[in-house]
Amino acid sequence: MKLTIRKDQLNDAIQQVSKASSTRPAIPILGGIKIDVNHQGVTLTASDTDISIQSFIPVENGEFVIAKVEKPGSVVLPAKFFVEIVKKLPSDELEIEVKDHFQTMIRSGSTDIQMVGLDPEEFPVLPTIEQSESIAVPGDLLKSMIRQTVFAASTSEQTPILTGTLWNMTEGQLKFVATDRHRLASRTATVEAPEGYRFSNVVISGKTLNELSRIVPDDHTHVDIVVAENQVLFKVGNVLFYSRILDGTYPDTSKIIPQHFKTELVLPTKKLTDAIDRAYLMSREEKTNIVRLVTQEDGSIEISSSSTELGRVTEQVEVKEMTGEQLRIAFNSKYMLDTLKVIDSEYIFVGFTGAMSPIIIKPTDHPHSLHLILPYRTTG
Amino acid sequence: MKLTIRKDQLNDAIQQVSKASSTRPAIPILGGIKIDVNHQGVTLTASDTDISIQSFIPVENGEFVIAKVEKPGSVVLPAKFFVEIVKKLPSDELEIEVKDHFQTMIRSGSTDIQMVGLDPEEFPVLPTIEQSESIAVPGDLLKSMIRQTVFAASTSEQTPILTGTLWNMTEGQLKFVATDRHRLASRTATVEAPEGYRFSNVVISGKTLNELSRIVPDDHTHVDIVVAENQVLFKVGNVLFYSRILDGTYPDTSKIIPQHFKTELVLPTKKLTDAIDRAYLMSREEKTNIVRLVTQEDGSIEISSSSTELGRVTEQVEVKEMTGEQLRIAFNSKYMLDTLKVIDSEYIFVGFTGAMSPIIIKPTDHPHSLHLILPYRTTG
Repeated sequence: MKLTIRKDQLNDAIQQVSKASSTRPAIPILGGIKIDVNHQGVTLTASDTDISIQSFIPVENGEFVIAKVEKPGSVVLPAKFFVEIVKKLPSDELEIEVKDHFQTMIRSGSTDIQMVGLDPEEFPVLPTIEQSESIAVPGDLLKSMIRQTVFAASTSEQTPILTGTLWNMTEGQLKFVATDRHRLASRTATVEAPEGYRFSNVVISGKTLNELSRIVPDDHTHVDIVVAENQVLFKVGNVLFYSRILDGTYPDTSKIIPQHFKTELVLPTKKLTDAIDRAYLMSREEKTNIVRLVTQEDGSIEISSSSTELGRVTEQVEVKEMTGEQLRIAFNSKYMLDTLKVIDSEYIFVGFTGAMSPIIIKPTDHPHSLHLILPYRTTG
Repeated sequence: MKLTIRKDQLNDAIQQVSKASSTRPAIPILGGIKIDVNHQGVTLTASDTDISIQSFIPVENGEFVIAKVEKPGSVVLPAKFFVEIVKKLPSDELEIEVKDHFQTMIRSGSTDIQMVGLDPEEFPVLPTIEQSESIAVPGDLLKSMIRQTVFAASTSEQTPILTGTLWNMTEGQLKFVATDRHRLASRTATVEAPEGYRFSNVVISGKTLNELSRIVPDDHTHVDIVVAENQVLFKVGNVLFYSRILDGTYPDTSKIIPQHFKTELVLPTKKLTDAIDRAYLMSREEKTNIVRLVTQEDGSIEISSSSTELGRVTEQVEVKEMTGEQLRIAFNSKYMLDTLKVIDSEYIFVGFTGAMSPIIIKPTDHPHSLHLILPYRTTG
């Protein structure tokens, strides 16, 4: 293998795939980036057991020459050092040459690097996915859907299935659900899909979705998604991102969502967020994060929290609309803040069915998001 | 105590003094900020055992009213919560009122806060410093002097005196020295001082100087420095910063600095820094950070590092001037990088007196900085 390649293009591709290389690999090859060179271009691949990312650099982009291939071939280079050294090379171009025993020479300006390369035959083989049917989601929408749900997934490995986000697809609607048993976030969107296409119980690790988010562009560029037996493939431009589907059956959460409310409030999102944020600062000192919400006779609500050592915070928030019974309820202020921060609507709807029943929070601008928080049982 | 005060001005002063409050106080009062209110203004004070910071907010700044004092008084409030809540208050102004038992009420917009205040009588008393003689140093110069020396101080508490920077003042020259026994950094500057004023063996903790740096403005504004028996006072605008002087005698470092060299190089700072940075990446994998420098017959130098598992980096750097013997030496690349990053000179002088003797690095633009690094003893 021998080629010269532009530093910037190689560096961009390395940055994308390196997210999938293990930082503490069980065997050295998993801490590597595989480089495959042919006369069409250079393919970089990194893989741990959960994620594989592949990025392709064509030899030219229109008139612009990116790489000149003298001899095709393959090698695996240790990711950590390779990622850092390439961006610091002195020249705009570098030469890579693989010699006997995968000994790799990198030359750039007055810099000469010898690297101990590994045998590409030992590198994990990527899953083969039949690309018969796929859905297309704009990049910015996919990022929003991830951001608006993944925070509610569990971080405890005791219930591995809940560390994922559940994906369901039916009647042209893609739905994400995440829950850690104390709260739930869901988001629905209409996406481009073949007529009658559907899937259910596709659960993808929250950590993986956060990694995916970083390589998805923040614009309308479509991401193609192919769901297979136990893998999902995301195509983002020249990048292929493979994720394992988590084993197990995701619990049915539809029954815990109340359909009727005893108290309904419409509140200004920003003012409520700021008030709960201040109450959170006090509640945090007690480690419980408990904040109380009490409806007032004058049509406002009072948010409060207290700490025996520090004191008390009391907030008044004006209500835009209120229907139903007066209410007194306590909840985890951190969970409420997490939810309020991802809702992009000037006003929010909050529905209560009693002090011990789930609280429902929804944007008033659109019907695509639904959030649920379980209240705290408190005395007084 | 009762007053109303502008949020921004109070917040700025809180941010300045809070750096001196203990995050894990031995007694609660040390985790507090003392507020003293009289008809001239508001004084905030925080103190741990090493540093005390005091900031004064006048009731008005020219025509601009900052605070309206209804009733003078004092209280100590827990720093952590107070620091965070003030900047998040909803209104531009807040009211603070201290009631019985130092119970403190803070009101701002629709927010009401009760805080458990502490008795100001229990707060540490600041050192009294006779302000007979002082020196004046422009803020940006003081910050440079700190940045160019403090990194070389020891971080090991086994030799407490070396965790400080040594200050000496004689003949209008202020000199800083820091060393951890493996390297040394020194910086001299001419400053405004009374005729014949001098001091020696004033050692100030590196951590303290980094804190001081954060409140010193990055311009020519003068910082007044008063050196007393076992304290140093820095006056930065409305802020007083007190630091303890470390106990003990700083070692005499003058004898270890060679005056004559067997090999002298003048090198381009940026190119040398980049080359050593790349060699450092490889040397870091071996945990030793060892980099070799070898002078070449063609008048350049070769910088190299190697790792048994990863490979080898070899760099050529052109020399601007070279006099003396050919040389082969090894040193800690991290120490060299730390030094090169603080030298603000396009070319640097590097002087060697042999493979086992101290390396001297100096800017070529001015004679005010001197750096020393001990080489490594290596085989081959």
